[in-house]
Amino acid sequence: MYSFDYYNPTHISFGEGKIAELDNLVAKDAKVLVLFGGRSAEKTGTLAEVKAALGQREIVEFGGIEANPTYETLMQAVEIVKQQKIDFLLAVGGGSVIDGTKFVAAAALFEGEPWDILLSWGAKVTQAMPFGTVLTLPATGSEMNSASVVTRKEYQAKLSFMSDHVYPKFSVLDPSKTFTLPERQVANGVVDAFIHITEQYLTYPVNAAVQDRFAEGLLQTLIELGPKALSEPKNVDVRANLMWVATMALSGVIGRGVPHDWATHMIGHELTALYDIDHARTIAIVLPGMLDCRREGKQEKLLQYAERVWGLTQGTNDEIIDAAIAKTRGFFEAMGIKTRLSDYGLDASSIDKVIEQLEAHGMTALGEKQDVDLAMSRKILERNL
Amino acid sequence: MYSFDYYNPTHISFGEGKIAELDNLVAKDAKVLVLFGGRSAEKTGTLAEVKAALGQREIVEFGGIEANPTYETLMQAVEIVKQQKIDFLLAVGGGSVIDGTKFVAAAALFEGEPWDILLSWGAKVTQAMPFGTVLTLPATGSEMNSASVVTRKEYQAKLSFMSDHVYPKFSVLDPSKTFTLPERQVANGVVDAFIHITEQYLTYPVNAAVQDRFAEGLLQTLIELGPKALSEPKNVDVRANLMWVATMALSGVIGRGVPHDWATHMIGHELTALYDIDHARTIAIVLPGMLDCRREGKQEKLLQYAERVWGLTQGTNDEIIDAAIAKTRGFFEAMGIKTRLSDYGLDASSIDKVIEQLEAHGMTALGEKQDVDLAMSRKILERNL
Repeated sequence: MYSFDYYNPTHISFGEGKIAELDNLVAKDAKVLVLFGGRSAEKTGTLAEVKAALGQREIVEFGGIEANPTYETLMQAVEIVKQQKIDFLLAVGGGSVIDGTKFVAAAALFEGEPWDILLSWGAKVTQAMPFGTVLTLPATGSEMNSASVVTRKEYQAKLSFMSDHVYPKFSVLDPSKTFTLPERQVANGVVDAFIHITEQYLTYPVNAAVQDRFAEGLLQTLIELGPKALSEPKNVDVRANLMWVATMALSGVIGRGVPHDWATHMIGHELTALYDIDHARTIAIVLPGMLDCRREGKQEKLLQYAERVWGLTQGTNDEIIDAAIAKTRGFFEAMGIKTRLSDYGLDASSIDKVIEQLEAHGMTALGEKQDVDLAMSRKILERNL
Repeated sequence: MYSFDYYNPTHISFGEGKIAELDNLVAKDAKVLVLFGGRSAEKTGTLAEVKAALGQREIVEFGGIEANPTYETLMQAVEIVKQQKIDFLLAVGGGSVIDGTKFVAAAALFEGEPWDILLSWGAKVTQAMPFGTVLTLPATGSEMNSASVVTRKEYQAKLSFMSDHVYPKFSVLDPSKTFTLPERQVANGVVDAFIHITEQYLTYPVNAAVQDRFAEGLLQTLIELGPKALSEPKNVDVRANLMWVATMALSGVIGRGVPHDWATHMIGHELTALYDIDHARTIAIVLPGMLDCRREGKQEKLLQYAERVWGLTQGTNDEIIDAAIAKTRGFFEAMGIKTRLSDYGLDASSIDKVIEQLEAHGMTALGEKQDVDLAMSRKILERNL
């Protein structure tokens, strides 16, 4: 395996009723800004539960963080932090709220123009406010990593940053909080986690036995339990395992010491930007064709995936790989997620626009070997029409 | 799965040549006490490499930490820390040196009699000196957890403590540093890690899908690569994977949210104390009989282990479990580790003494269901004569 550094200091408090632990996790004298997204945090009662757990602490609320959190909105939160002398941030929500809170945490203590945080990919971050999270939508893994994605509307730019200073101090994961999620978000979360794993696993072998086995175990768990999350929506064990898979998928434990791909995500992002398709759905569209077209470079790992995750061993290598790709597509479809551009009303002309955007954004050498050029991206999308 | 808390802030620096990173991991102005065991750290050149990496920093050396580190020895190190105003500790060695360094880190800042650290199981530890580790013998996982075992000779007592204050700040894991280990220690390390995993996995099911898959993946990796560590002693990929398995086995990632057993370890400790058999060998003696005698309470997990780890599915439940136990015993024997008391020159009379000691130490209700009484311990040992 490759040399690597692993560091992840986030304290996870996992289980039903764990929101009450906030009273122990947050300093008694903290003045807390509670950040959240839309109305669901209020409607489901989670926000009230959080406030009750915080007891006598002084609380300021900041709602309205968008699905792709914007610099414009987050800078309003930064203002509140400064004016009201907030000393702890608490994100209540999914990946967008947590990503946004990471930016607020870094921006509030940043000297200079906070946009530089994103332009420097986080390199200029030397400190951040402490913050915790209460996760309500498992998918992105943001609750246990140091990455954040922020959109600046006026520049039409979506940029990310990473910094060891923005690991959450703690994250509360109560699986019963996901009971109220719409089926669409549950399915999106499962597929999003699945492809987070394949981006770190379906590359080329580097003899990373532990990372491979862990990745395969997470994929098997999603395959086994994903459909049950839809058919048994109040099964807390199913929700607990899916929540923990999504967290582990991007916590570093499967991703350190191995090559990464992420071409599926880069192409998917353009589909979201152009056609407003949910992120998880765009990557479910892209992945099957991605694996099909790049089967040569990925052959060894695709055969390992076929055997260990799907139990496929019969036939020629190409037949086994075909079967594994069909199983993957079938799993997404079984989760209610369509996997072809035509399912979303898009025809061949849509591909030209995606390729234009990829070119405009410099996405001309994607993947673990930087060999996914624009011609290959076109071929991949055509395979998924 | 059970509710759980997970927290592990140790920074891992993994790979060949990573000892050079010490220059970045240790503060430039630190006065460092380098703690190590016997002569092997000097003979292999690791100590020289560590000192070279520390460059101009002021260094004090403290060698001679025993295989079961003693309070008496460690208190000498505490004295040096105080007299020489040391501000950083660096453990160079295996689990014993690291466990010992944890105690020194806590004892140096402890108000009162440091033995209370152990009598309180770590509860009285409110602070500790910062320390790092350079791992040379993978087995115990101490490099990435908060546990320590210390022996006090004058009281014939071996006690442990845990504290969030004694997570190493960093651990350097260079797999090529294990090339010089004697075959016996390599084999011991593999079997020790294996049984650390089974103690957290072979209990009863609680629907902890991720922890189960991770545990199975670690066991599969040991089974696949353990024998290669003996037949290809300079294969760095094999050593790297085994090193990472041993670290992951006790880092918390497979152990949080599930029941634990540890009866095999408790009985094994008595065999080490009475007959001076290597720790790994004692637990390799105990485990097969343990699984055999407790097959009823562990049936579901034993069948899962048989199928997922060994691919065994044919026959009655008892036949499958018999085959899984035989495979387990066969794996230990293939590592050169004998699994019967008679292999170590012990007959039935030795068992009486073990039972006496278990009783004297209050080990009368062991295991995940506290149902391993002295009669059961006797039966287990008789099964392994």
